[in-house]
Amino acid sequence: MAIYLSNFLSSKNKKSKMGDFQNLEHLDGVSISAISANLYDGKRDDLVMFYFRDGANYASVYTQSKIISENIKWNLNLKNKKINALMINARNANAFTGKKGYQGLKEIADELAIQLSIKQKNDEEKPMTIKPNQILFGCTGTIGEKYPTEKIKKSIPDLIEGIKYTQSKYMWMKAALGIMTTDLVPKLAMEECKIGNVDVRIYGIAKGSGMIFPNMATTLGYVFTDASLSSSILQKLLRKNIQTTFNAISCDGDTSTNDMVTIFATNKSKNSMIKTINDSKLEEFEKSLHNVLLNLSKRIAADGEGASKFITVNVNNSKTQEEAKKIAFSIANSPLVKTAIAGEDPNWGRIIMAIGKANVNISLSKLEITFGKIKIIEKGELSIDYDEIEVAEYMKNEKIDLNINLNVGKKNFSAYTMDLTKKYIEINSDYRS
Amino acid sequence: MAIYLSNFLSSKNKKSKMGDFQNLEHLDGVSISAISANLYDGKRDDLVMFYFRDGANYASVYTQSKIISENIKWNLNLKNKKINALMINARNANAFTGKKGYQGLKEIADELAIQLSIKQKNDEEKPMTIKPNQILFGCTGTIGEKYPTEKIKKSIPDLIEGIKYTQSKYMWMKAALGIMTTDLVPKLAMEECKIGNVDVRIYGIAKGSGMIFPNMATTLGYVFTDASLSSSILQKLLRKNIQTTFNAISCDGDTSTNDMVTIFATNKSKNSMIKTINDSKLEEFEKSLHNVLLNLSKRIAADGEGASKFITVNVNNSKTQEEAKKIAFSIANSPLVKTAIAGEDPNWGRIIMAIGKANVNISLSKLEITFGKIKIIEKGELSIDYDEIEVAEYMKNEKIDLNINLNVGKKNFSAYTMDLTKKYIEINSDYRS
Repeated sequence: MAIYLSNFLSSKNKKSKMGDFQNLEHLDGVSISAISANLYDGKRDDLVMFYFRDGANYASVYTQSKIISENIKWNLNLKNKKINALMINARNANAFTGKKGYQGLKEIADELAIQLSIKQKNDEEKPMTIKPNQILFGCTGTIGEKYPTEKIKKSIPDLIEGIKYTQSKYMWMKAALGIMTTDLVPKLAMEECKIGNVDVRIYGIAKGSGMIFPNMATTLGYVFTDASLSSSILQKLLRKNIQTTFNAISCDGDTSTNDMVTIFATNKSKNSMIKTINDSKLEEFEKSLHNVLLNLSKRIAADGEGASKFITVNVNNSKTQEEAKKIAFSIANSPLVKTAIAGEDPNWGRIIMAIGKANVNISLSKLEITFGKIKIIEKGELSIDYDEIEVAEYMKNEKIDLNINLNVGKKNFSAYTMDLTKKYIEINSDYRS
Repeated sequence: MAIYLSNFLSSKNKKSKMGDFQNLEHLDGVSISAISANLYDGKRDDLVMFYFRDGANYASVYTQSKIISENIKWNLNLKNKKINALMINARNANAFTGKKGYQGLKEIADELAIQLSIKQKNDEEKPMTIKPNQILFGCTGTIGEKYPTEKIKKSIPDLIEGIKYTQSKYMWMKAALGIMTTDLVPKLAMEECKIGNVDVRIYGIAKGSGMIFPNMATTLGYVFTDASLSSSILQKLLRKNIQTTFNAISCDGDTSTNDMVTIFATNKSKNSMIKTINDSKLEEFEKSLHNVLLNLSKRIAADGEGASKFITVNVNNSKTQEEAKKIAFSIANSPLVKTAIAGEDPNWGRIIMAIGKANVNISLSKLEITFGKIKIIEKGELSIDYDEIEVAEYMKNEKIDLNINLNVGKKNFSAYTMDLTKKYIEINSDYRS
């Protein structure tokens, strides 16, 4: 079961209101290719490349895990401010594969750089020589399995041949599908906005929880804009806005070795130079970027393994955002809260438990809790209007809002998660073979 | 399904090797009464009292939650070093019940103190007047429901009448059953040892995860000894030994408002005075106490909601115990690890993931992992002897040992948990009514 998400759409762009999937179109400077490298025995696309024929500025955030995959190591070693390609494979995480896994990426990057350079010579007026260290990698799949270096290398000619310079929504969808593992739905989002008086676009795709060989929930998110923005501005924008978007979702509290979110700017728009993220001309862009990141994040949570309900935990009026976040995640990660919601049980006692264990000093007599708009706790006591039948009815919704008002300050944090169902256990306990 | 635990028995006492349940017998100075106060409509015992006719020294550790139940507040307010009774009720947690919940305990303590004082006059040569503040409370059950003060008060005469001055294993079992909620099996443990050349006994009962109205996993543990030990010695012993026993188990990472472990000493044994826990005469006693606490803890984990397998996570040769603990719990609390084990899938990649996310710096090239005695990872790489069929066979066992050797220091920590099954979801998502 996938949760229908059309009302997550936050874009003001009318084009994007045409149903659940937003219509991503051509973005100047971005080329896409998506093929099968036979990693799933030819049954689906599993190798996706974003090719920036004129290069792109970029910025990434990576997993905070102490054990990181070989492609994350590769990416961290790149010292270039400009990049020419992002290659993503599904089915194999290239994690815990040691030197051979890293060497595999090097071989692939060498070969891809050669073939892209040849394509530059054929297609461009002023051809560039593309170097291996101008290629970024995203990997998702099983940990510890031999990285399929040869299969991917052999697929490079197909990948090059598949490059589309002009994108339709079909190609964006093909890319979003090609990076999926056990995701049930592809995840795309877009916004259009202005920097100064120049129109720019922000497009994004992501994948979330689950793998076809179940292993872990790797999050990959890739955002593309035609705006002219330096890598340093991109890095600051991404770091700032990731906190309340990708870092606000939790499916099961586990963290992958491979998590990666990257933003690319093709510099095709003629907006004026932006020197600081506090530039007022950047305000609208930042809001739109936040929307794209949040939209993708929510889609990942809603498509969390086994999800039957999408849960938003709003913790408001806290002394600090950090404390609000602790409480929000204590609730969002509690198996007891998440199973109660799966059972449509208005079991508010478990919310109290989760608030209590968050290790934040609260003022119990000021605590207010509502489920949606229904008052549960007022001034630290069960509301006199509490009507379990009314609340039980609310729990039947597909989207559940848990609102915790601490009434001790002015800071807020919202976390996004899904319920914990038998399906989650099924997906994750089925033997891999 | 309950996991058969006979080989958790750690006692050297031959009597205790007679099957899964240990034979707790009479312990001088401890009286037990267990009755039905009709909290479950008369279907089972739900009110248990341990009565110390000559008083007992005691020490407690309580939940670290910031929201604590009214009985924990009551207990924390007691300033006496000696106690005369511990009353435990199931079915209602007396948490989030406000002033009325606290007032209920006061009324019960007042009445119980009066009736116990009358019993003292009838039965004792040198009768004591028992005061309300010499009564300790344990509560477990639903959060936020009105505390059944009247039902319990009305049951006090039955409770007094039921007092048995001499205990058989039947009475200990009745007490262990009376404090259960959704536990599948009662939990008892015992050790016999010496302080100096004097024989002493340590008996304990506990309850674990689950409630008949599912709400949360409240842990209650009560340990009794006839040794002569001051409350201050008891407190130090309990604080020290709780870290590697009750604080080493995790069923779902959630923490109750009501968790409580207490040790009582009736001072009936004529052992010599102990002034410090470093006294060498206390060594054997401390080991035995640790065994009782560990035995009870393991029984709680093994009977965790929905458990089909008991999991021990040993993290060895860490720089600090704190780091070993972080990694052990990162593994023990990972839903992805626990579902893989439920599925008997030797998915070691998820162990790697859980080690990585623990936020401890490790030396990957020194990492060793074995499942039981089977080598999985050696020197940070998949063992050349790795045979998935052999490991898959091992995963069929009811007890799974995950051994993580960091090889960077000399500190160890073991955590105990169970697998995550569909049954867990069933128990916790079924609507309460």
